[in-house]
Amino acid sequence: MITTNLDRMDEKIKAFSKFGALEGGGITRLSLSEPALEARAEFRRRVLALGMTLESDDIGNIYATYPGTEEGLPRIVMGSHMDSVRNGGNYDGIYGVLSSLEVAETVITEGIKLRHPITVMVWTNEEGARFEPAMMSSGIVMNKWTKESMLAVAETGGTVTFGEALEASGWVGDEANRLNDRDYCAYFEPHIEQGPVLEEEGLDIGVVEGVVGMVNYDIILEGVSSHAGTTPQSYRKDALRAASKIILDLWDKLGAIAGDLVFTTGEITCRPNIHTVVPNYVKFSLDARHQDMDVIAKVVDVIKNLPDEVYGCRLSYEEHWGRNTIQFDGRLIGYVEGAVKDLGYSYRHMYSGAGHDAQYVSELLPAAMIFIPSKDGLSHTVVEYSSPEQTWHGANVLLNALIEADRNF
Amino acid sequence: MITTNLDRMDEKIKAFSKFGALEGGGITRLSLSEPALEARAEFRRRVLALGMTLESDDIGNIYATYPGTEEGLPRIVMGSHMDSVRNGGNYDGIYGVLSSLEVAETVITEGIKLRHPITVMVWTNEEGARFEPAMMSSGIVMNKWTKESMLAVAETGGTVTFGEALEASGWVGDEANRLNDRDYCAYFEPHIEQGPVLEEEGLDIGVVEGVVGMVNYDIILEGVSSHAGTTPQSYRKDALRAASKIILDLWDKLGAIAGDLVFTTGEITCRPNIHTVVPNYVKFSLDARHQDMDVIAKVVDVIKNLPDEVYGCRLSYEEHWGRNTIQFDGRLIGYVEGAVKDLGYSYRHMYSGAGHDAQYVSELLPAAMIFIPSKDGLSHTVVEYSSPEQTWHGANVLLNALIEADRNF
Repeated sequence: MITTNLDRMDEKIKAFSKFGALEGGGITRLSLSEPALEARAEFRRRVLALGMTLESDDIGNIYATYPGTEEGLPRIVMGSHMDSVRNGGNYDGIYGVLSSLEVAETVITEGIKLRHPITVMVWTNEEGARFEPAMMSSGIVMNKWTKESMLAVAETGGTVTFGEALEASGWVGDEANRLNDRDYCAYFEPHIEQGPVLEEEGLDIGVVEGVVGMVNYDIILEGVSSHAGTTPQSYRKDALRAASKIILDLWDKLGAIAGDLVFTTGEITCRPNIHTVVPNYVKFSLDARHQDMDVIAKVVDVIKNLPDEVYGCRLSYEEHWGRNTIQFDGRLIGYVEGAVKDLGYSYRHMYSGAGHDAQYVSELLPAAMIFIPSKDGLSHTVVEYSSPEQTWHGANVLLNALIEADRNF
Repeated sequence: MITTNLDRMDEKIKAFSKFGALEGGGITRLSLSEPALEARAEFRRRVLALGMTLESDDIGNIYATYPGTEEGLPRIVMGSHMDSVRNGGNYDGIYGVLSSLEVAETVITEGIKLRHPITVMVWTNEEGARFEPAMMSSGIVMNKWTKESMLAVAETGGTVTFGEALEASGWVGDEANRLNDRDYCAYFEPHIEQGPVLEEEGLDIGVVEGVVGMVNYDIILEGVSSHAGTTPQSYRKDALRAASKIILDLWDKLGAIAGDLVFTTGEITCRPNIHTVVPNYVKFSLDARHQDMDVIAKVVDVIKNLPDEVYGCRLSYEEHWGRNTIQFDGRLIGYVEGAVKDLGYSYRHMYSGAGHDAQYVSELLPAAMIFIPSKDGLSHTVVEYSSPEQTWHGANVLLNALIEADRNF
């Protein structure tokens, strides 16, 4: 089997780690910030050195392309994003770009003949950490929201708009360059797992079948505030006690639906939140995700059948948003799995619990993702880590899946 | 039985309600603020009009005294405070001052002959809403903390110190005027119950036996943050789930200790408190109060026997502070109960769950409190309410208990 270069892959990770580097490790490389523009400049330098052509579209997405051997065939594209969250790590997003670049470098320097042109892609503002929402520019390309509304979005905690930052970046190109289904025929996105499963199970690769569907609710308990010293327990309508009961009930009831359902009560608000006052209001979030939308429907049933009253507190809920499960392309998944097997790597099929640009792209093109293990399952933190071997394994899978796609598309 | 004047009692409540009045009801009358100084000026005007002499001590506590018939006897003092919390009501504190004033007015205008001088007292800064801690000046008088350290306390959310506000108030008098056990022989403090018991049981008066002992703890659960979409439930160490379990366990275990134990988990902190992230840190407060310190000891036992680990999260706790139960003076309690019975009012013995200046005074002088009902058990809110009849009942009990104390001391 042909493989990429382990040292070269690792050099790329280390080289890009300096853009936005924090003392003590990790990076803050918010979209279109100075460190993000430095990373883009380094990306441009490297792809031009490889003889690739560079284009950007009107939202600053970057496309570096190397021609194929047959005229008129559409491009196969691979990539991810280079922006990070605040106090993020050196793998989330950037690994997808750099493993794609390492694959392109291998193809070019090894003289591997591919029929289709190949494109290494960088998405603008995937994290949404500076400009909300996440996956902003793939969302624009796929008409999830309008470009105009996104250009007007001001940075979190500041005044600069996405439009202003984009204009100032020097990366605004032609709208005609946007990813489309005439010039492109397939999309691969390598990524770190961001969860503990591959590491815990001692596996090299996650063959990603799709992105799980999800729902987001707020659950609200309303009781009565009263004095901690003067209100007998039997008279209390304690919203935090009621919320605690519901949180545990949700663990029981949702846990019984499906073993691989994930659900999270990550955010809680308590009022008045004073140690000498019985809380009269507690709101907590519920995020639930699963690949089978019938399972998600059962989650919604559980929420809708929560009692109206708990320990004297009124229960209500608000649905915020949800998304359906995204299924990746069966052929591309097959090429990824075939590459993994041929390389002799251990693997499992899995769904992505987190959102990725690939989920929007999958509505336009055949798409698939490749996961590598995350140390301790951690991401969005300065201690995010995958070993040089793990990053190399993912690049090797991408290279061989690309070759197989090139053969068949 | 001799009684005070219902209309005059009610007029006092209404007259003082205008100092710091909020649109829509209630007051904000922070200690030594402009409205608090207006209330003090009105108090001075009224006691001087009754022929009482006025003194203040070095912390601005006010003593308005009317002489008795026998030379050389110490004073019997009654009173409370006139400051409120932010968005407070027209009864907490001020009712104790105004019912004492109504009793003095009755004694003076009806020509009731008392052997002892009587003093109506106003404590500075009981609430601690502007300058922490609560019960600041009774704490200074009783050596709970030094005057110097209290003078240096800056207002919450501002820069003015207690010392500066006191100096500017014009109410700084002689340290020799402080409440003491040579010039005074007994202390009564009428107050609203601040709880629902009297109203729920349809009773007129609470004969207060003391102030309950209490403990304050923080309980901390430490887990591991992870991504809401990518971490299977079985791998999670969710600090909010663990905290919910402990909160419900505490309700079970503490509830089994004693039916009249009160305990509150009023404050909760969750980190990172993001709906897509499993919480790695939750801290919540536990406040428990009971008159029997053996019961409080059992509460501490429960806390100390909490498991070290809950759902994979490490549990720890921090004790913040506590206080022993304060027992009021048996004779004064007897005079209060005797007055209630003679007046034909319904009543019950009870402990105060909240702290009051009387608890510090009780270390210096025989002390007792008289509670009247609070509508819906509410205090520290603009809707705080006791009816004119209820405020009058309390004043009548105070008057007759005072007469009995005067006869026996």
